[in-house]
Amino acid sequence: MLKRIATQIRKWFPAPEVSAHCDGPCGVYDPASARIYAEAVFSMTKKILELDPKAGDHKTANTLSRYIAIKEEQAQKTKEDLLVLWTDYFKPVHLEKYPDLHDTFWKAAKLCSACKVEVSLEHATELLETVEKIHGMFWATKERDVAWVKAS
Amino acid sequence: MLKRIATQIRKWFPAPEVSAHCDGPCGVYDPASARIYAEAVFSMTKKILELDPKAGDHKTANTLSRYIAIKEEQAQKTKEDLLVLWTDYFKPVHLEKYPDLHDTFWKAAKLCSACKVEVSLEHATELLETVEKIHGMFWATKERDVAWVKAS
Amino acid sequence: MLKRIATQIRKWFPAPEVSAHCDGPCGVYDPASARIYAEAVFSMTKKILELDPKAGDHKTANTLSRYIAIKEEQAQKTKEDLLVLWTDYFKPVHLEKYPDLHDTFWKAAKLCSACKVEVSLEHATELLETVEKIHGMFWATKERDVAWVKAS
Amino acid sequence: MLKRIATQIRKWFPAPEVSAHCDGPCGVYDPASARIYAEAVFSMTKKILELDPKAGDHKTANTLSRYIAIKEEQAQKTKEDLLVLWTDYFKPVHLEKYPDLHDTFWKAAKLCSACKVEVSLEHATELLETVEKIHGMFWATKERDVAWVKAS
Amino acid sequence: MLKRIATQIRKWFPAPEVSAHCDGPCGVYDPASARIYAEAVFSMTKKILELDPKAGDHKTANTLSRYIAIKEEQAQKTKEDLLVLWTDYFKPVHLEKYPDLHDTFWKAAKLCSACKVEVSLEHATELLETVEKIHGMFWATKERDVAWVKAS
Amino acid sequence: MLKRIATQIRKWFPAPEVSAHCDGPCGVYDPASARIYAEAVFSMTKKILELDPKAGDHKTANTLSRYIAIKEEQAQKTKEDLLVLWTDYFKPVHLEKYPDLHDTFWKAAKLCSACKVEVSLEHATELLETVEKIHGMFWATKERDVAWVKAS
Repeated sequence: MLKRIATQIRKWFPAPEVSAHCDGPCGVYDPASARIYAEAVFSMTKKILELDPKAGDHKTANTLSRYIAIKEEQAQKTKEDLLVLWTDYFKPVHLEKYPDLHDTFWKAAKLCSACKVEVSLEHATELLETVEKIHGMFWATKERDVAWVKAS
Repeated sequence: MLKRIATQIRKWFPAPEVSAHCDGPCGVYDPASARIYAEAVFSMTKKILELDPKAGDHKTANTLSRYIAIKEEQAQKTKEDLLVLWTDYFKPVHLEKYPDLHDTFWKAAKLCSACKVEVSLEHATELLETVEKIHGMFWATKERDVAWVKAS
Repeated sequence: MLKRIATQIRKWFPAPEVSAHCDGPCGVYDPASARIYAEAVFSMTKKILELDPKAGDHKTANTLSRYIAIKEEQAQKTKEDLLVLWTDYFKPVHLEKYPDLHDTFWKAAKLCSACKVEVSLEHATELLETVEKIHGMFWATKERDVAWVKAS
Repeated sequence: MLKRIATQIRKWFPAPEVSAHCDGPCGVYDPASARIYAEAVFSMTKKILELDPKAGDHKTANTLSRYIAIKEEQAQKTKEDLLVLWTDYFKPVHLEKYPDLHDTFWKAAKLCSACKVEVSLEHATELLETVEKIHGMFWATKERDVAWVKAS
Repeated sequence: MLKRIATQIRKWFPAPEVSAHCDGPCGVYDPASARIYAEAVFSMTKKILELDPKAGDHKTANTLSRYIAIKEEQAQKTKEDLLVLWTDYFKPVHLEKYPDLHDTFWKAAKLCSACKVEVSLEHATELLETVEKIHGMFWATKERDVAWVKAS
Repeated sequence: MLKRIATQIRKWFPAPEVSAHCDGPCGVYDPASARIYAEAVFSMTKKILELDPKAGDHKTANTLSRYIAIKEEQAQKTKEDLLVLWTDYFKPVHLEKYPDLHDTFWKAAKLCSACKVEVSLEHATELLETVEKIHGMFWATKERDVAWVKAS
């Protein structure tokens, strides 16, 4: 079934597969940027939970509002960066290797949305784990062994 | 196989499916904005091909450079708007109905990139056809019969 | 009086009127995008009013802050899209047909601002009605009969 | 006629006029930012005309493409900043004083578009003159005498 | 010591100094835009402090959230505009004249961040004073006497 | 001399130094994002030089214009990301350890501008080397040993 899809897509994009129709500068894809954003989502979620939404002072209102906005922005950027990998880096040849490619990214994107909608350490943790999984898949396609190093 | 994926995703997102984890304001999703952007991609592609890149005057250089930039921007917005539908509107329940959901959007996103990379009326036409297909899928999930009306 | 203004503007822009100085790709203007944004403004206003600003928990603070930001963004986009129609699509020849063109758009833009400043279902409703009016004016200039279809 | 329009608008926005429905922080409107952008449009237009579009080397192609993009961006920002004044600062009470308020801004916005579409020193000069006229109208409404100082 | 640094930088950028490597269109730099943004930061800080974060109604929640977001945005734009002056306008020759150039801008940028993090009239005032100082330094390098005129 | 500056700055920002006035979420700073952007600048510079600006066909015009725009954008993002480190991460205590901190970042920012203005492999290489130097300084302040791993 997935083979048929891959075959069909290859028919749509008959050019040499791995480098075909790449949107940005080939070779400079790197899941590290999505990882940095996802770390910020986690950090902001944690810091929001440490604030008291009942405090009722200007300082807390300011911090709470800013942290929610930063969480939103960073979750959006995580999503955008992951989707660049999905839409531009990954090619039909990779789909054969990773039959769950589409679902991995769909789940990852939905996790980004969940991290906006909620203030959930559990989902922020899952998001980081998903980015780590994608990091592994990505570097495996390049046959490179790149360590998963977090900033925080 | 796809059923298994759907089951798994439903496990990840156990909340009531159709309204769960929606990123924006539910009910205001509309493929019309992607259609408008895709029409602009087509229009710009056509207008670029009508220009003479050898002309060598300031006027043509200005117009050519602007039209390429507008094509780029509109193709990017088409992609973003389509991916919002894929990541936020469509839910596991829809995947069961449309087993080619993921591939439709992957192809659509890759077509957006192709329309940036190339000056191709053929790919711009395919992009519009893909958006029309998505328009049909989208409104069918809402059991509404919305006409496909182009601006140009 | 308005005729004099139109005459003067025609003097400033002597090129063939309907297609002159158009900013973007002619023919791809469509008030549908402003309509989608205005629907989101309405939806967000409604959802904000359904929240309890006294709740004092992280979940409500997060949702309230996000919805206000989305309302702001969508109202701004409604304004930008309407002003593109006013500044780029509408030409002196249309001003003769619609002497209240300027005031319609001025009022519409001020309604967008009002929808940011307030949490007002009344103004959000008026904004949608104004966009519908503009939809009518716009398609009439193209002698096309396009239905007003809302997403929600 | 214009009185009737003003009366009607006052009916729509019955709140105290000068401060009503202001979008941003009242009192910090300043046409200086539009002036700076318009100066950049003029400067970029001049520099584009000094380049040889037939040169055919990487350096010229790079500079030409960048300058066209900067001109586009600065003309867009001029337009946005002027429209903020029109939609948010100016109120019905000002329309009575300046019956050509709407046309002044419509013309100004169309000039911004013309400066994108063309490489025209004449239109770039007219744009600066229009911004100077708006500078005069703006400060007159505040009964302040602010000098017109250009950066270049 | 600072002379040595200047000499070294001149070695890195051997082109004619004052016009070398300028990022945008030379001659259109103007600290007025940073001043307008810094005024908005001050105004928003003041207006936030006038609101009651305990009010618990939709109107106050909306206004508070918007003002915090506008303060954030304006402080960010102040920072960006100041850093354009530091990175693109100021050249090694200016560093000799103003040995505290780097620290002035570092302090200014950190003040922008402080104005985001806090709701502090004191820091907002300091930011305006710093922008005024930079205004003085900037116009002195051009041997022009430009008055410091605030919008509010 | 630099000690005096540090002392003065510490007076301005008397709060605990290393975590004071941090703009974003502490601990998620990472020079990897600047590195990715700088790699893209290098890659785009190389690809532009491989194109023939005399080709005179639509395909080359499209690719050339896009690559110049991507180079511009990536150089701008490199600059922004580096300046976030300089303005938000680095504190007076670090200035004592790295007396050339300011000049390193000034040079880096000017290199970003140079990479926009020119199509220069030499400057793109220098930019990457500067980012690598900053990577080293950054992780040294955190007493962590993080490898410099490029994506391409």
